[in-house]
Amino acid sequence: MRRTSRDIRTANRYGVLRQIIARSPVSRQDLAAATGLSLATVATLVGELLALGLLTEVGFEESAGGRPRGLVGVDAGGATLVGVDVAETRVHVELFDLALNVLDRADEELRPGESAPEEVADHIARAVRAVTGRTRDGGQEAAAVPGSPGPPGAPERSGRGDGRPVLGAGVSVPGQVDREGGVSVHAPRWDWHDVPLLRLLSERLPDHPLHLDNPLRACTVAELWSGAARGHGDAVVVSLGTGVGAGLALGGALHRGATDSAGAWGHTTLALDGRPCHCGNRGCVETYVGAPGIVRHLRDLAPGSPLFRPGDQSATLAALARAARDGDPVALAVIRETARFLGAGIADLVHLVNPEIIVVSGWVARLLGEELLTAVREVVARRAPARPLAGTEIVLSTIPTNPVALGAATFALERHLSDAGAAAAAERRRGGARPAATPRAPRP
Amino acid sequence: MRRTSRDIRTANRYGVLRQIIARSPVSRQDLAAATGLSLATVATLVGELLALGLLTEVGFEESAGGRPRGLVGVDAGGATLVGVDVAETRVHVELFDLALNVLDRADEELRPGESAPEEVADHIARAVRAVTGRTRDGGQEAAAVPGSPGPPGAPERSGRGDGRPVLGAGVSVPGQVDREGGVSVHAPRWDWHDVPLLRLLSERLPDHPLHLDNPLRACTVAELWSGAARGHGDAVVVSLGTGVGAGLALGGALHRGATDSAGAWGHTTLALDGRPCHCGNRGCVETYVGAPGIVRHLRDLAPGSPLFRPGDQSATLAALARAARDGDPVALAVIRETARFLGAGIADLVHLVNPEIIVVSGWVARLLGEELLTAVREVVARRAPARPLAGTEIVLSTIPTNPVALGAATFALERHLSDAGAAAAAERRRGGARPAATPRAPRP
Repeated sequence: MRRTSRDIRTANRYGVLRQIIARSPVSRQDLAAATGLSLATVATLVGELLALGLLTEVGFEESAGGRPRGLVGVDAGGATLVGVDVAETRVHVELFDLALNVLDRADEELRPGESAPEEVADHIARAVRAVTGRTRDGGQEAAAVPGSPGPPGAPERSGRGDGRPVLGAGVSVPGQVDREGGVSVHAPRWDWHDVPLLRLLSERLPDHPLHLDNPLRACTVAELWSGAARGHGDAVVVSLGTGVGAGLALGGALHRGATDSAGAWGHTTLALDGRPCHCGNRGCVETYVGAPGIVRHLRDLAPGSPLFRPGDQSATLAALARAARDGDPVALAVIRETARFLGAGIADLVHLVNPEIIVVSGWVARLLGEELLTAVREVVARRAPARPLAGTEIVLSTIPTNPVALGAATFALERHLSDAGAAAAAERRRGGARPAATPRAPRP
Repeated sequence: MRRTSRDIRTANRYGVLRQIIARSPVSRQDLAAATGLSLATVATLVGELLALGLLTEVGFEESAGGRPRGLVGVDAGGATLVGVDVAETRVHVELFDLALNVLDRADEELRPGESAPEEVADHIARAVRAVTGRTRDGGQEAAAVPGSPGPPGAPERSGRGDGRPVLGAGVSVPGQVDREGGVSVHAPRWDWHDVPLLRLLSERLPDHPLHLDNPLRACTVAELWSGAARGHGDAVVVSLGTGVGAGLALGGALHRGATDSAGAWGHTTLALDGRPCHCGNRGCVETYVGAPGIVRHLRDLAPGSPLFRPGDQSATLAALARAARDGDPVALAVIRETARFLGAGIADLVHLVNPEIIVVSGWVARLLGEELLTAVREVVARRAPARPLAGTEIVLSTIPTNPVALGAATFALERHLSDAGAAAAAERRRGGARPAATPRAPRP
């Protein structure tokens, strides 16, 4: 958990690439200003990223009274990345270019009862092969999802990644994950315990590196690289779904904690002795602001409401969201009650973490949108002192695509950068052929 | 809030000096192993610390089959540091050597009604002059506290800092502090708002740099440099007094947050709609585990208890602690009730932050000691999942002296190191005379 020189080099490499993705094309001088690093450090890092084939030189801009400045951009026509969102009832896969634009998508349904690790691994592998165009190993090409061409204006749209190298695939699975070991430690939905998912996947997808993590951390990294948290030192990403979490992005990097399980905010206590939670405790944040908790607010406030869609909490919340936008008093009361708890929980994050920005993400937040956020901001303003609150924005996620798949692909990009950095360092130690990156006496 | 190259150099300088203080005398090789930095980086940093006069070369140790390794240690006979703990009823000042051993102490009482900023500043200045031996500017020498010779075995014990240079003084004042501006933003006890305390102190103590901060952050930095958090990547320092807080030490450095107010854990919500808090909300952690909250548990459980010392909460808690150690059932019930809330709050920190260690500090923790900690660990074990909990130790602070004064002096040491680093960097940019630290092309 200590930051070593290599961690710092890796973090700087991430920071520079993140800004290049955001600003492409961009000069080294503008990157130095955006990252706070020296121009010489930026030049070295850009040289490494060019040597790794992640960037291209894309021309020059005039500088005021000096020689023209070279511009670099992400090589969006080069290699690709895969992001896999394994949810409870389906596997969703997206293929990305190196600027993290979506090139292609594929889905596989997980039917009820299909919960054996090998079955789930088969579905994941089939969907990944569908987007990478690799159909050997006996897999069928799954149909790409039509009508989902990615964000407008993205320059690269091959429709497939055929022939383009895949730098890696990130796989997000729900529950507790041992990232280093590639193990699903506990996935309650399928009653998985210590499933070696990465090994099962490597057998099926031997052609590129694979990385395992969980949805909360994927969402957080997606916001850090491509969303509202980019450029902020300290950010919290509150994820609202059936489960609830708060990913911490501190100093520009994901805070993982001692056992890689930081962010379990859904099981912090908001009302000791309150609503029972499936975790065995009472009054957890999740019981009041997760999807089932919000449905329960509706049941408590209006037991016979026509907003209920029995057995379908997503449809119930969608009906609630529509009714709230139409000014329905019951729906607005449910939003207010949810905001009373969510606002208290977010005020707690302001008190404890004092971040620059809190990004509210997840499908529940997407449905309830600004109606919920406006009510939450009012509660937070009543509860948190002026000084920390003045430094904290509370915003909805603006990522237009699936943030979990995006974050999973981002993990694959991060890992590629850090592995490449380690390889370059090893080459330097052997006295390798990259003089521009051969420090005689490394500086602190 | 972004980490720049200079932040990283400063953090590395802190990390190396912290390990030298812990292990003195120590070889550069052992420092590289302890910090995770490269030997070359450690050698550069040790060179800088030697040039700053903070270290001395103290001989050699034999290495296995190589040339003897040079050992360095802190120059404990050199410069000194001052730490000031301004509490509600007294100013406590300690003088430290560079190994952070206490050399001398002085106290000034703040009488009821003595709350004008100028009066408090006069008391602080008088106590500081008492330990630094500087009596000019008309100040009287205050009597050093007898019978408090500092921890046993400390090599330097001049009894005074006379003649030794003072690198700086750190001053901790309660409440909200604007560290950069040197302003006490709000100190409720004295009804201070935006008091420019650092300016008032600089007028009275013009001879050395002064730094303002608050007790929670001072305690946290004391644990990080000299206490149980040293050597841990992620730590939380829970401070229990009349007020309550949780300082976050993440990645080996204090996490300050966007407006320098992170750690206000005492005002996070443990029981929405619970006990009223002076902050205007209800159910804050502080209302259940701060000193007045514990006294209230006693009143709720045993209204006529002989443990009460009317009007004196410290004496009541001391009586409670003695009774608990003697097995008194009422005292034990109060400890259990306190632990029920404190354990839930600490389990929340395990869930959200997932630190390697939680250090419980402050005068309430010192009084109730292992009786409280044992009960807390049981509650946390029931509430937090096995995986994060397995990675987290929960311990009492082991700092034997005043942690606030120690932390305040540590801030002065940190600031000296970072100012010296900035000056060295400026000298390098001017092409100065320190070739060993002149990077032509800084590395990432």
